[in-house]
Amino acid sequence: MITAKGLEGIVVDDSAICKIDGNAGRLIYRGYDIHDLASSLSFEEVTYLLWNGDLPNADQLKEFNNDFAHQRSIPENLKSAIRKLPASSNALDVLRTAISVLGAEMPLKKPDMVDAIAISAKIPTINAAFDRIRKGQEPIEPRYDLSHAANYLYMLTGRPAEAVKADALNKYLILLADHSMNSSTFTARVVASTWSDAYSAVVAAICALKGPLHGGAPAPVLKMLQDIGKPERAEAWIRNELRSDRRLMGFGHRVYRTTDPRAEILREIAEKSAPKDLIDLAKNVEETGIRILQEYRPQRKLYANVEFYSAVVMHSVGLPPDLFTATFAASRSIGWTANILEQVANNRLIRPETKYTGPLDRKVVPINAR
Amino acid sequence: MITAKGLEGIVVDDSAICKIDGNAGRLIYRGYDIHDLASSLSFEEVTYLLWNGDLPNADQLKEFNNDFAHQRSIPENLKSAIRKLPASSNALDVLRTAISVLGAEMPLKKPDMVDAIAISAKIPTINAAFDRIRKGQEPIEPRYDLSHAANYLYMLTGRPAEAVKADALNKYLILLADHSMNSSTFTARVVASTWSDAYSAVVAAICALKGPLHGGAPAPVLKMLQDIGKPERAEAWIRNELRSDRRLMGFGHRVYRTTDPRAEILREIAEKSAPKDLIDLAKNVEETGIRILQEYRPQRKLYANVEFYSAVVMHSVGLPPDLFTATFAASRSIGWTANILEQVANNRLIRPETKYTGPLDRKVVPINAR
Repeated sequence: MITAKGLEGIVVDDSAICKIDGNAGRLIYRGYDIHDLASSLSFEEVTYLLWNGDLPNADQLKEFNNDFAHQRSIPENLKSAIRKLPASSNALDVLRTAISVLGAEMPLKKPDMVDAIAISAKIPTINAAFDRIRKGQEPIEPRYDLSHAANYLYMLTGRPAEAVKADALNKYLILLADHSMNSSTFTARVVASTWSDAYSAVVAAICALKGPLHGGAPAPVLKMLQDIGKPERAEAWIRNELRSDRRLMGFGHRVYRTTDPRAEILREIAEKSAPKDLIDLAKNVEETGIRILQEYRPQRKLYANVEFYSAVVMHSVGLPPDLFTATFAASRSIGWTANILEQVANNRLIRPETKYTGPLDRKVVPINAR
Repeated sequence: MITAKGLEGIVVDDSAICKIDGNAGRLIYRGYDIHDLASSLSFEEVTYLLWNGDLPNADQLKEFNNDFAHQRSIPENLKSAIRKLPASSNALDVLRTAISVLGAEMPLKKPDMVDAIAISAKIPTINAAFDRIRKGQEPIEPRYDLSHAANYLYMLTGRPAEAVKADALNKYLILLADHSMNSSTFTARVVASTWSDAYSAVVAAICALKGPLHGGAPAPVLKMLQDIGKPERAEAWIRNELRSDRRLMGFGHRVYRTTDPRAEILREIAEKSAPKDLIDLAKNVEETGIRILQEYRPQRKLYANVEFYSAVVMHSVGLPPDLFTATFAASRSIGWTANILEQVANNRLIRPETKYTGPLDRKVVPINAR
C-alpha cells in the first residue's frame, strides 16, 4: 500500500501524448516542443498530431480540415436545449449539458476518432451559441472556409476577426490543448477506463475543468488585473490579498518548478494582441506577485502560470471573461479525446483505494436507544 | 515516482466513510457491518449515517425523512428537457443530462449537505419520469408519505408496491450505497478536488457509472440468465462464452478475494422476492460460473459479484433492465455525495502523472516536406 494524497508523484499509466519537464520548463506534444508548434502551425495541424501521433502531410491536412470543419454545426434540438437553460448559467454548465444532450443520441460504444472529431469540433459552436442566445441574439452558423480559431471569433460576433486576433486565439488553442494528467484529462481517462463512452468521458472532464483550482482561474485573473487597475497599485493589492488569506490566482503550478513555457509564449502573444497599458499592468503584476509570494514561501519560488496570460490573451481577442473556461475546454477537448483514445487502446480500470480511519465494530441499536 | 496502472494498491486519501476487507469479505459503513445495516434499517437511516457519521435518533430521523422526501419533486423545465431526449436514450444519459440541467440553475459553490439531499432525492424521480415519458405516459408526482424505496416503485407504476418488493429494493439501495474508491466515487472526488460544484461532481460520477466495467453489468447479467434459460444449459453456455473470449458478466471483483458480502445478502433477498425458477437458475449459474472460471484462472478464484444478484433483485421488484444502472445510481449517489463532502472538507487537488513513452526532439518541417 502506498499513500499519496492528491496522487502527487504517482504514475497512472504510460502515455505517448505529452511530456512535461517541470524542472526545465519544457512541454512536448508527441515529441515536438510547444514553442515550435505554437510558432508556425495551425490548431488543426496540432490537433491532428495529438490524435494521430504525427503531423499531417498536405493531403492529410486538407482532408482533416474538411472533416473537422464539417462537424462544427449543432442540431436544432441542441440549440433549443441551450435556449431553455437560464441566461445566467455558467458557460461550463451549458457546455456540460450540451455535450450530454449530444451523447444521449449516441450508442454506448468504445470511443473512436469519429467521436473525437464530432465532440471537439462543436465546442466553439456551443459556446458561441450560448453567448448569442443569452444576449437575445440568434446563433450564427459556422463557416467552413475559416480556421477553427477564426470561425470561433466569427460565430461570436458575426464579423470576420482581425488576423492578429485569430492568430492569437489559434496559438492559445495550441498551447492549452494538452497537459498530461491534469485533473480534467485524468477524469476523462478514469471514465473511459470503465468502458463508458466518449461523450460521457468528455462531460466528466468538463465537470472537472469547471473547478477554480483547475480551469476556472483565468476569469478571476482578469478581474484581479482590472481591480488593480494601475501598476503602482499592484504591491498594495497583492499584499492585502495574501494578508487576508486569499489565494492569488494565476500563480504557481503543481508541476512546474520554473516558468511555465506556455505562460512565456502567451506573454509574447499578448504583447501583439493586447493594448499596451494592459500588457504593462500584467507584466508589473506578474513581477510583483512573484516577488511577494517568495517572501511568503521562501522554500519554493512560484511563477505566473498559464492562466495568468491566458486571461490577457482571451480578453484581447474579445472573449468575455465568463467564456474563458469554456474556451479553455475548446482547446483541452483535444487532449481529453487523445487521452480517451489512448486509454481504451490498452485499458485497465482505474480504481485506487482509501485508508479507512473511521470507527469499527459498532452495533446497531434500536432507534429509541440512540 | 511510483507506477501503478489502474492505481491498484494506491491509497488516494484517508476516509472515515467505508471500509472494505477484501480478504474477509466484509463491508463496513461508518463502523457498522453491512449485514446489520441491511437487516434492520431504512435506506434513509443509512443515508443519514453515511452523510453524518452516526445513525439518527428518532427526532433526527423524522426531520431527515421529511427534508429528504420533500426534495423528491423535479421542476417542469426538467421534465420538459427529459421529453426532448430520444425515447431510446440510455437511462444514464438521461440522468446525466438531468442532473446537469439542475446544476445549471445553481451557483458555483462548495458542495454542502443541501446539495447532497437535493441531488440524491431526485434521482428516482428522474428515472421514473423518463421511464413513463418514453412509454408515452405522464410522470407521476412523488408521494411524501412513502419511503424512498416504496416511492420509487410507486412513481414507476402509479400503484403502491407490495411490501416484499419495497423491502427488497430498500435493502438493495442500502447495500450499494457506498463502496470506497470505486471508479464513479473516485471520479466524483477528483472533480470535487478542483473546487468544482456538487452537481458537476455527481454528473461526472454518472459518466463513470455508465461503463460496463463498473455500473453497467447488471442488465447483461439478467440477459445472460434469460439466455441460459434452464439450469442444465448453464455449463455449455458459459463454456461457449469463455471459449469465444467474451467476459462473463457478474463474476470477479478487483477488491474481494472471497464472496462479496453484498452478493450473499442480495441472494437472500432474491430468495424472498424473486420467482423460484429464477432463483434456482441464478444459483446454478453462480456455482457453474465459479467452477468453470477456476479452470480458466486457477491462480485466483473468482466469485459472483454484487451485480450478479443485483440483477435478480432488481428484476424481481419490477424494474426494467435498462433502468438497472440508473437505479444503482439512485443508491450510489449517497456514497458519491458523502465522498464529495469528505473531499472538500480536507482537500488536495487530485492530479497524478503519466510516464512519457513517445518520441523526443522532433523538429517541425514545412508541410510540403512531410
